[in-house]
Amino acid sequence: MSRWKLIPGNLASPAGFLGAATAAGIKKKPGALDLALILSTEPATTAAGVFTTNLVAAAPVQISRLHLKKSLGRARAIVVNSGNANACTGSAGKLVATRTARAAARMLGIPPDRVLLASTGVIGVPMAAEAILNRLPELQARLSAQGADDVSQAILTTDTCVKTCVLESRLNGKTVRLAGIAKGSGMIHPRMATMLAFITTDAAISSRAWQAMLRDAAAVSFNRITVDGDTSTNDSVFALASGASGEVVKAGSAAGRVLFEGLVEVCQTLARKIAADGEGAKKLVTVEVRGAKTATAAERIARAIANSPLVKTALAGNDPNWGRILCAAGYSGAAFDPARVDIRVNRVLLCRHGLDAGFDEAAAKRQMDGPEVTLRIDLHQGRAEYQMWTCDLTHDYITINSSYRT
Amino acid sequence: MSRWKLIPGNLASPAGFLGAATAAGIKKKPGALDLALILSTEPATTAAGVFTTNLVAAAPVQISRLHLKKSLGRARAIVVNSGNANACTGSAGKLVATRTARAAARMLGIPPDRVLLASTGVIGVPMAAEAILNRLPELQARLSAQGADDVSQAILTTDTCVKTCVLESRLNGKTVRLAGIAKGSGMIHPRMATMLAFITTDAAISSRAWQAMLRDAAAVSFNRITVDGDTSTNDSVFALASGASGEVVKAGSAAGRVLFEGLVEVCQTLARKIAADGEGAKKLVTVEVRGAKTATAAERIARAIANSPLVKTALAGNDPNWGRILCAAGYSGAAFDPARVDIRVNRVLLCRHGLDAGFDEAAAKRQMDGPEVTLRIDLHQGRAEYQMWTCDLTHDYITINSSYRT
Repeated sequence: MSRWKLIPGNLASPAGFLGAATAAGIKKKPGALDLALILSTEPATTAAGVFTTNLVAAAPVQISRLHLKKSLGRARAIVVNSGNANACTGSAGKLVATRTARAAARMLGIPPDRVLLASTGVIGVPMAAEAILNRLPELQARLSAQGADDVSQAILTTDTCVKTCVLESRLNGKTVRLAGIAKGSGMIHPRMATMLAFITTDAAISSRAWQAMLRDAAAVSFNRITVDGDTSTNDSVFALASGASGEVVKAGSAAGRVLFEGLVEVCQTLARKIAADGEGAKKLVTVEVRGAKTATAAERIARAIANSPLVKTALAGNDPNWGRILCAAGYSGAAFDPARVDIRVNRVLLCRHGLDAGFDEAAAKRQMDGPEVTLRIDLHQGRAEYQMWTCDLTHDYITINSSYRT
Repeated sequence: MSRWKLIPGNLASPAGFLGAATAAGIKKKPGALDLALILSTEPATTAAGVFTTNLVAAAPVQISRLHLKKSLGRARAIVVNSGNANACTGSAGKLVATRTARAAARMLGIPPDRVLLASTGVIGVPMAAEAILNRLPELQARLSAQGADDVSQAILTTDTCVKTCVLESRLNGKTVRLAGIAKGSGMIHPRMATMLAFITTDAAISSRAWQAMLRDAAAVSFNRITVDGDTSTNDSVFALASGASGEVVKAGSAAGRVLFEGLVEVCQTLARKIAADGEGAKKLVTVEVRGAKTATAAERIARAIANSPLVKTALAGNDPNWGRILCAAGYSGAAFDPARVDIRVNRVLLCRHGLDAGFDEAAAKRQMDGPEVTLRIDLHQGRAEYQMWTCDLTHDYITINSSYRT
């Protein structure tokens, strides 16, 4: 049982945060929100970040990495735009990012390295500095707790819905809140911080402990989802802790464990929402591998199944094609005995000891025909397990991506 | 310039080979050819084979591996069926394969280990022995040079066309021929012998030298294609050398080099045909990476690009989205400097030094709108290069695979 309660709200539900968004004309659609500012009003705020491992990192990723390091994890503001990723834009793109951070810092009266940046959208298109710089004063004027609602809209691209999670708990008699928003639908692949996500809390925590917590939470959430196996140039997850609740959380304490638990819950909730809203996806698919000899084997098998286009098209067609699942496990690189494997979709046994279990086809199809499906693969060869989240692969993925740029 | 000439023909164009096919009712479609026999009439025939590296290997793969080893590369017959992969069928499936080889051997008057087996089709469905065993005599009665035409039909599944390549050359004054057929359209992924292909020649060559040649030829052909990144349970390439031309080819000799050259040409031609006929594909895409620091880096980058669903959907939409190409290179795991990369589609420069080259959008789209497209990525960082073949990712891939089994 979680010690955290889900509550309605936004990034400003934790004390000490404000948000604002505007339509800066970066997105093609007129009037679409595409530029946002998130600010912590507390000077003592600590910040953590995890980033894409793609060698081709976008300008905002490069600048944010640098700022987190220079400020020793003390950033207080995030400027984020959608519609243009500012990736593969060279020194011109980096200059836009640097000027954005400087202008925002001057306006907010903080050092430039306290500003983090994130961009998402099309790659390789020059970024116009003015689109952002001219709108910063408007963003500052609009900063409010309510304005944070717009932020979760402004970061979306091909997403079909906003992705939010707000939690509340009592730590040592004090009310502490955690909030997160995310965007992500295509170019989603695990093994790194995937997509954009921003997390706030009003707990007080050292930047070193907060960074360690974010890294560990990302490993069991954002790093366990895949939509299409493509790793973005812009993935960033930022977490800000304002300390405004008055509750000081030490690493390794009971309160630290509770805060981590809540952070994992926020990250996993957002990660599942991203997988469920994968480009063209009609369902969230959980891949559960258990009974593996080693954790590495369990992970390899789960990743191979979650990334298989054949498994994912079968899921789109409600086809209980367990042979493709066993096939993907077979090429995963993990060692196992196929003759001991059981495969279930939800509770229906499709494959027993590596063979057709003689299941009821119609019943299996019914199990697959819903918004959430779990594939359970039991290797019966050990105690290690691994879980991933993915989605089905449908016609709409092709439609969305065959003409995304133009 | 190749020393081999492309000629019309089939697997029986090299001297010493016969073929036959029939409709055994294994495929659902009534009257569809789905069972075939390839036979070398020469007792001195040598055989080579390369197989899937998938841990979940189908029964015919297991049996054929064993037979090639037991016979020391002397197999003379291939029994192949489509419609059922006889994979994930356990000991019952293995028994069907064993009985098939035994029955064919008895009928043909050769030891069982001289018979190779291959199956392709749906995974995990029990294989009825009778469907094959009862039709073997009919296949034997139909054996002929002309009958080999039917074989290239009988091995197809979701393929939209037969894939054949027949070559002829003069070696030391003797006419030598090489022929190959292949099937493969989905569940295609490199890094192993992919799909089914059968190759015949009337050159005489030791089984050891023949096996080495086939392994090396597969490495630069079948192992360089990808359709969907899924590695099959049934991939097998068999090559039979009847010796009926009278030309004895020694490894390392001038004739050996010419034979290898022809074998590579057959394998690459068939490999390109498989990629071009990828499930739902509208075009063959060649990915050429050059200027890499190491061969491994070139290969990693080529594979990442050729496997990227986002690159492949952009290809389907004739969208010159070079950012996705650079992005895929970035997550390939290879080290390189993005600021030195040039990217071309055919001869149109899309990206120069990692930035938008300011290309003519309409001209680039026209280049992409044909049956063959080449993506050229020059890293300008060394001399290593690597080439792969793939296809675009279209709606039809989803349609074909969301209801393949049922």
